[in-house]
Formats: sequence, C-alpha cells, structure tokens
Amino acid sequence: MTTFSEQHPGVAAEVPPATRGFRLNHTMLRVKDPAASLAFYSRVLGMRVLRKLDFPEMKFSLFFLARLEDGKHDVPQDVGERTAWTFQQEGILELTHNWGTEDQADFRYHDGNAQPQGFGHICFSVPDLQAASTWFDENGVEFVKRADQGKMKNVVFIKDPDGYWIEIVQADLLAQLGRPA
Amino acid sequence: MTTFSEQHPGVAAEVPPATRGFRLNHTMLRVKDPAASLAFYSRVLGMRVLRKLDFPEMKFSLFFLARLEDGKHDVPQDVGERTAWTFQQEGILELTHNWGTEDQADFRYHDGNAQPQGFGHICFSVPDLQAASTWFDENGVEFVKRADQGKMKNVVFIKDPDGYWIEIVQADLLAQLGRPA
Repeated sequence: MTTFSEQHPGVAAEVPPATRGFRLNHTMLRVKDPAASLAFYSRVLGMRVLRKLDFPEMKFSLFFLARLEDGKHDVPQDVGERTAWTFQQEGILELTHNWGTEDQADFRYHDGNAQPQGFGHICFSVPDLQAASTWFDENGVEFVKRADQGKMKNVVFIKDPDGYWIEIVQADLLAQLGRPA
Repeated sequence: MTTFSEQHPGVAAEVPPATRGFRLNHTMLRVKDPAASLAFYSRVLGMRVLRKLDFPEMKFSLFFLARLEDGKHDVPQDVGERTAWTFQQEGILELTHNWGTEDQADFRYHDGNAQPQGFGHICFSVPDLQAASTWFDENGVEFVKRADQGKMKNVVFIKDPDGYWIEIVQADLLAQLGRPA
C-alpha cells in the first residue's frame, strides 16, 4: 500500500523504508523564566512536565512537556524509563532555560515573526474555540488575533510569556480553509 | 486520578478541566523553496503531505506534513475532511511558503540559533541512530553535530534546506541523559 500523500513538486512517491519508525517528537523553544513558562503551559494549556534535565556544566536545564489526557498514557515512574518514553512520543514541547536569563530585566528571546523571520508558531487544536478564547481571557492571556479578526476567520493567535505565537484552532471549523469561496 | 507531572515552580497541581481535549497539533516554519523542503522532508525524513492550502490574495501557501506509518492512519480522501483531520493530529509540521522567495538569490530565513535566539529546533526520534546517520550521509544531509561530537553523546543535529536545526535521537540511548554521572 502506498501511504497517502498529496503530490507536489519535490514530494517522494513513496515513504523510503529507511525512515520507518521516524517520529516528529518535539519542538524546542528557549524561555527566559521557566516558572512563568511552566505556569502558562500547565495552567493555561494543561500540559504536564514529563522530565526536567539539568546540565550544570553548561548551565542550562531542559523541560519536556506533553498534553496527557486522563488515563490515556502510562507514564513510567522511573526517571530513566520516563526519559526514554518521552523521546518516543509525538507532540512534545521542550523548553530550554539558560540559567540566569530570568534575572536580566532587558533580556528577551526572538519570536521569529518580527524580523529576522523564520519559525512562526506552535499550534494547539481545541474542541471549542469560543470556550477556549473565554478561558484565555479569564487567565489574562495576550491575544495576537481573535477569531473574528483579520482575513483568517476562526483562527486565534495568542502569546506565551516569551512572546512566542501560539495558534489555536478548532478542527471542524477549518474544513473549508484554503478552498476557493 | 491525578495526571502525571513532575512538580517544579509554576507547574499546576492538576490539569485544568477547561483544557480537556487541547492537543499540540503543529509547528510552523517558513521555508524559502517548497520544492526543496518537500523533497527533504518527504525523502530524507519520510513525511507525507496531508494538505496544501493556497491563499492567493495574501500570496502564500501552507503545506501540512505528517509521518504516516503504513496502514496506521485512515487519512480522509475528501479534502475538506482531510483538512479537519489534519488539525486533529499531533506531530504535524506546517511549512509556510511566501510566494517568490525561492527566486531571490540572497533570501534566507533565520534559524533561531544564531542571534537573535529564540526557537531552537524540531526533533525526530528514530529507531536506530547509527543507521539514520548513514541514511543522512547517503542523502547528502548537512550535520551540525554527529553522535560522537560535543558534550551530548548520542544526540545528532542535522540541517534542513533552510538551515533549521533538526535533532535526531534514539530514545533508548537517552535514559541516562541529564542524570549525574
């Protein structure tokens, strides 16, 4: 069976066998103040911390976060097993804390949307976009764009504590996205 | 049942019920030349293109890519259903093409690791790090760091066509990562 793909210039006709088992595990963002970021990602977006890894010699720590639905995940208690388990999942967010940035008043990471551009955003899918927007307002979250603003209706952008953009979508509202009107 | 989390400053004790069903769906990177990027992500990393969305009025296109293992995914044929399905998954990579950048000789996106820093990398987990490295060499992929280089052993970094860093890990080799020696 040929694994599904739309065909566009450059796209391989088949999945190369050498890539079997490859998995998009995580995205890494540097954060200025881990307490602020952990509060945001755990309280506002409901993520859990799978592992913190400390590298004292290089003066940084890594936090690996995931969305874990109740009862759906069997997270190992042993830290070594849990580290290995973490690297086998999809949809992990890695936050890197270079020690001391939280104490530098003017320190700020680059969001990738101002110049020079590159990385754009991460995106969370939610069951109810309106309810999620109300939840963000209740938590004092800064919006880049609300659902009824701009040309892309039903697409919300919020900011995390470092100013990284987070897109929020409700999948069933987007079936017509990118189709001729 | 309390959903698992390590406790660190800032981390919520419980998953807020308002976040039920939230899912980390995708990461978006801007790419200069979609044909080059699609060749890389489909041929070297085995990703498939779920949907291309065109926005002629704003002169950009979006490509949504996923790792699809044979027979494990029931991708809808209808484009509208497939768009909605795409936004319900985890581990999706969104590539944004602003039309015309591929024809500008000096055009280059920012990788987030040079200054100004922010976004760091995406990461693929692979079953066999050594076999994957051989595969990357066979495909002429540029390495940032090989498994035996630097302080982080058994962690590989390669570059995509825009210079974005991609970490490559083999989960079972990393159980001791970040633990005192």
